[in-house]
Amino acid sequence: MTAAPPPVGGSRPRGIQSGGSALREPVRIGLIGAGRIGSAHAGTLARRVPGAELVGVADAVPAAASRLAGQLGVTAFGSPDELITADEVEAVVIAASSEAHCALIVAAAAAGKAIFCEKPMSQTLAEADRALAAAADVPLQVGFNRRFDAGFAAAHEVVASGGVGTPQLLRSLTRDPGLANPGAVPPWTIFTQTLIHDFDTLLWLNPGASVVEVYATADALVAPEYKPAGLLDTAVTVLTFDNGARAIAEASFSATYGYDVRAEVFGSAGMVTVGDQASSSLTHYGPDGRRVTTVRGDVELFRDAYAGEFAEFADAVRAGREPAVTGRDARRALGVALACIESVTTNRPVPL
Amino acid sequence: MTAAPPPVGGSRPRGIQSGGSALREPVRIGLIGAGRIGSAHAGTLARRVPGAELVGVADAVPAAASRLAGQLGVTAFGSPDELITADEVEAVVIAASSEAHCALIVAAAAAGKAIFCEKPMSQTLAEADRALAAAADVPLQVGFNRRFDAGFAAAHEVVASGGVGTPQLLRSLTRDPGLANPGAVPPWTIFTQTLIHDFDTLLWLNPGASVVEVYATADALVAPEYKPAGLLDTAVTVLTFDNGARAIAEASFSATYGYDVRAEVFGSAGMVTVGDQASSSLTHYGPDGRRVTTVRGDVELFRDAYAGEFAEFADAVRAGREPAVTGRDARRALGVALACIESVTTNRPVPL
Amino acid sequence: MTAAPPPVGGSRPRGIQSGGSALREPVRIGLIGAGRIGSAHAGTLARRVPGAELVGVADAVPAAASRLAGQLGVTAFGSPDELITADEVEAVVIAASSEAHCALIVAAAAAGKAIFCEKPMSQTLAEADRALAAAADVPLQVGFNRRFDAGFAAAHEVVASGGVGTPQLLRSLTRDPGLANPGAVPPWTIFTQTLIHDFDTLLWLNPGASVVEVYATADALVAPEYKPAGLLDTAVTVLTFDNGARAIAEASFSATYGYDVRAEVFGSAGMVTVGDQASSSLTHYGPDGRRVTTVRGDVELFRDAYAGEFAEFADAVRAGREPAVTGRDARRALGVALACIESVTTNRPVPL
Amino acid sequence: MTAAPPPVGGSRPRGIQSGGSALREPVRIGLIGAGRIGSAHAGTLARRVPGAELVGVADAVPAAASRLAGQLGVTAFGSPDELITADEVEAVVIAASSEAHCALIVAAAAAGKAIFCEKPMSQTLAEADRALAAAADVPLQVGFNRRFDAGFAAAHEVVASGGVGTPQLLRSLTRDPGLANPGAVPPWTIFTQTLIHDFDTLLWLNPGASVVEVYATADALVAPEYKPAGLLDTAVTVLTFDNGARAIAEASFSATYGYDVRAEVFGSAGMVTVGDQASSSLTHYGPDGRRVTTVRGDVELFRDAYAGEFAEFADAVRAGREPAVTGRDARRALGVALACIESVTTNRPVPL
Repeated sequence: MTAAPPPVGGSRPRGIQSGGSALREPVRIGLIGAGRIGSAHAGTLARRVPGAELVGVADAVPAAASRLAGQLGVTAFGSPDELITADEVEAVVIAASSEAHCALIVAAAAAGKAIFCEKPMSQTLAEADRALAAAADVPLQVGFNRRFDAGFAAAHEVVASGGVGTPQLLRSLTRDPGLANPGAVPPWTIFTQTLIHDFDTLLWLNPGASVVEVYATADALVAPEYKPAGLLDTAVTVLTFDNGARAIAEASFSATYGYDVRAEVFGSAGMVTVGDQASSSLTHYGPDGRRVTTVRGDVELFRDAYAGEFAEFADAVRAGREPAVTGRDARRALGVALACIESVTTNRPVPL
Repeated sequence: MTAAPPPVGGSRPRGIQSGGSALREPVRIGLIGAGRIGSAHAGTLARRVPGAELVGVADAVPAAASRLAGQLGVTAFGSPDELITADEVEAVVIAASSEAHCALIVAAAAAGKAIFCEKPMSQTLAEADRALAAAADVPLQVGFNRRFDAGFAAAHEVVASGGVGTPQLLRSLTRDPGLANPGAVPPWTIFTQTLIHDFDTLLWLNPGASVVEVYATADALVAPEYKPAGLLDTAVTVLTFDNGARAIAEASFSATYGYDVRAEVFGSAGMVTVGDQASSSLTHYGPDGRRVTTVRGDVELFRDAYAGEFAEFADAVRAGREPAVTGRDARRALGVALACIESVTTNRPVPL
Repeated sequence: MTAAPPPVGGSRPRGIQSGGSALREPVRIGLIGAGRIGSAHAGTLARRVPGAELVGVADAVPAAASRLAGQLGVTAFGSPDELITADEVEAVVIAASSEAHCALIVAAAAAGKAIFCEKPMSQTLAEADRALAAAADVPLQVGFNRRFDAGFAAAHEVVASGGVGTPQLLRSLTRDPGLANPGAVPPWTIFTQTLIHDFDTLLWLNPGASVVEVYATADALVAPEYKPAGLLDTAVTVLTFDNGARAIAEASFSATYGYDVRAEVFGSAGMVTVGDQASSSLTHYGPDGRRVTTVRGDVELFRDAYAGEFAEFADAVRAGREPAVTGRDARRALGVALACIESVTTNRPVPL
Repeated sequence: MTAAPPPVGGSRPRGIQSGGSALREPVRIGLIGAGRIGSAHAGTLARRVPGAELVGVADAVPAAASRLAGQLGVTAFGSPDELITADEVEAVVIAASSEAHCALIVAAAAAGKAIFCEKPMSQTLAEADRALAAAADVPLQVGFNRRFDAGFAAAHEVVASGGVGTPQLLRSLTRDPGLANPGAVPPWTIFTQTLIHDFDTLLWLNPGASVVEVYATADALVAPEYKPAGLLDTAVTVLTFDNGARAIAEASFSATYGYDVRAEVFGSAGMVTVGDQASSSLTHYGPDGRRVTTVRGDVELFRDAYAGEFAEFADAVRAGREPAVTGRDARRALGVALACIESVTTNRPVPL
């Protein structure tokens, strides 16, 4: 299995269609997880990924699987295990709760299935190592969807081809539009679930470099009443790389203006910026000036990127090659996240 | 059959998914025309429109149909007639050469098939009337794809809901990136094939108003050596509406910077502008300033709009309702185009 | 006297400082006209033009001159004639009512004074010829201020240096934020006072080309009740040039979103666009999206351009050369405006 | 003496004219320092600040003063002391080398002159205290020019009026276009000369809040060969405020694309961004996409802001009030810079 570059370009058409995939048999996919993101993935897999065929869904709660399967006209499996071992399932997309990811990867790999796992792939580095070892012989892709956004992919291409020279200052940020249920947010979520995207982005946009030290600071500014319970809703981190570059990652759970994901790479020969919240090309002018409507959620912002990551997965499965985003990438981003948590705990920079 | 509003919004997700369509049987579509746009449509229908299933293609040149059908793994019909009368074909998408449109509509309607016809629906108003009469009892949609672009759709929503007050000055333009084969361009193409899009846009963005007079001027500035053969590659037209609004439509066949389609509606209470050539959200900064890459073709710019128009068609067919863009819309835009041609010929404003 | 290129560049600093002007004696300027634009010019001349010194003001209404002179601490002359013949006045800036322009030019030229005259320089071509003949031996500059806006000047530079190839399609527009007193607007004002700016812009941005035909249409859409009295508040014109280029100029008196002046030149090798209504670099994001505040008036939008045109005037006077914008330019733009009026009257294209 | 809000708004006209200043006697200003920024300030004071009159210049090197004075037609004083004690000098603008600032403030205050001092006001907090004590009875303004940029001023207005709610995440950055002479850059310059602007900006955009802790990391990435000599050309800092907000300030000495200064304030109710590198409103479209030219230096970017800070100074002097940017502001920003230096030295967060 060899890694291929992600089959996306800087072009507006964000869905990715691999050349001859229509002639190939679509990859028969079973989806585990019928929650918010699982349901969105199911819709994407059922309708928008030429090389994939959604054959069924499962969930720890069978009724949730039944409801989603009914909406899409596919099979509802009685349990994740049943789905994993079903003959008609060729590949498994894991969108269950994060705690279950590692065990599901191990089970799916044992069943010889190709695996797509939502981020975070694991909760600990030990779990990551267990997942990587288990999946050594099957394709394993992780859900760092930003890599399949046309703008982010174009930024990567420019950086990787030397268009900004040597990266020196990088920035990646995530601002989620809302914190619906602060009481339900596990401690450190902002690092392990949110900023983990930014860490992957920053590593990907500083190709070949490794993080040698992190500093992180975080607080509960949106919902301070939940701070005693461990909620951190605002965070800033600084990563120092072995090539000298410094990168900032920041996140907040309370953007009133929508879902905001941006990145910037400044280097010795130029800069790229990427990320735009505009919901369309419309500008509306009136007595209060000119106005552009902004996107409201990840599914809206990354609709094509979600389709793109699954197209890459289907293509890698059919081609028998390693997907463009691997379990090793997931382990690496997790390592940064865990070091950041330690930095917040100790209020010190933490070497990696 | 009743007209429904187009099921698109101002949101970034440009593909249109009708609520429960996944549970419905997809509409079985036969495509006529294996040229540039026909091939693009075939790819869209095969891969990106949940409510549609491409069952086969036909072309006046059977070998062209075979090649395209082979690429997509669908049936190659021996002739358009064969496709039209095939039992497994429920609806026909006509992307043949313009001269053939009217006869194909009449034939498909006679066979009771739902019809999607590329623009222009017809070459003359008499043809348009013949097509409309023939298709009185089947769904007939015309390929004014811009209406399904997220930005244009949002502009329409703002205008239709009074967001700019009464339209007073409108503009729509098309700048095609190249004129590959000037000798092959039939006379008046810039009006009947290109600006017809802009005329539909302007009529749609000035809801309820009718054109009462047009003025047009045109020239061969890109390829002047072909002017004697009737080529006009640059045109400007002014439409006067019965509500007093004036609209400008302009077109050129030689945009060196890509494919450029924009519109603007200025009214008593504000303005909307729409259309953006950026190929992604990437901005690249260097010694020569900051730069944004531009899209290069209609298929790239309107990828989601093409999928959207077919989703609307499939939905209208399944719902037994009139599509959002009708044959009457096609006739209306053609009337403006023909009056513009007369204006160029006579160098006078022409009343409608 | 030889014409010099306007001493402005594409740079943000919009005020123009000629190299050694600080060492020269400033040009002693008398201003005629204490109305809205005259008062704005007085403030600019008093404070923002290094090479100029405002020595006094005059007005047909002496009390108006006294009030303005008092505010600025300069001399109030008893009449325009008194100012023109005053020894301490070296150059005259004419910002009186348009009907008075020609006679004031003749008088100032007779007194040997350098002359800056607001647009329109004259009401008729005969008047224009009289003014040109009278001012044959003194510097005469006309108030086409847009040429001194950094963006417009940069556009001209790009076009003049071949950056867009041969111009093929041009556009210039003016949208004024309000029509305070429709009853006071003389007939044809939209052509002779407003669009005359756009005509100059279009001629300047299509260097070396001449207008050979115009088509114009106009209406009273903002204040239709004043149409019987001759008010036209909305106009669209199409100019055909001898190099084949077509240009659109449009104007409205009712932009709710501020003062909007833009231009576009599309040519065989590219395009430039210019004009931005943003009042600063601030973008404000909130629940209704992102918003930019817009400028509200010409004095705000063209503050630096006004200073720039006077700096050019002062420099030309001191250098004994012809200013960058001449009386011939004024005559040429007026010719286009008058042909447009004829086109509206006859509803025909009018050759020049 | 009471502090007044800075007399700037969010409007495009960036020069600031205090209402009745034309009737007042302009403030007679002597400038100390004939280097790069001193010469720029001299030009601004001589030509662009209505309320100010440049009467003379001085420099530690008399020949430098003579040359500059000659260019502007003003007096060349034999030494800074001579200028400070001259009767015709009412106010002193200090643009000498940073080491000299404190002593010059003390001397000017002793002579009873109003004082405008470039940043940094002092090298140490002890010096800052000495300067503040000395200038207790004269107006003392410090050169934090960004506050007088139209965009930054508008951002402050929005934030101060609650337009983004409570600030939670802030960012300010400075990217200088070049490092002409790395060997001549004193150690820690990036903090005391460059980022000190950003620290003032961040304090000003988080009104009422104080910095309680800083973390900083810095390196020599542009000119690593000068690192042994103490050069740091790239820095990232994180400030934690007592209201919980986190702010990032970053700087680099090597922007290939021009001079880049931006800020962002994200809060509980929205966000503002400010800063634009475009040199004019021109966009140029060609085969490589669309392009905007960028500004190349601070004097170009902040031309109006420089005029604005001097207009504020002149107005404060005439009004007998405290200027909008005080010596206390300078001390506060210096405190942050010194803590950052300690953080780099110790590789620890440093409490204030």
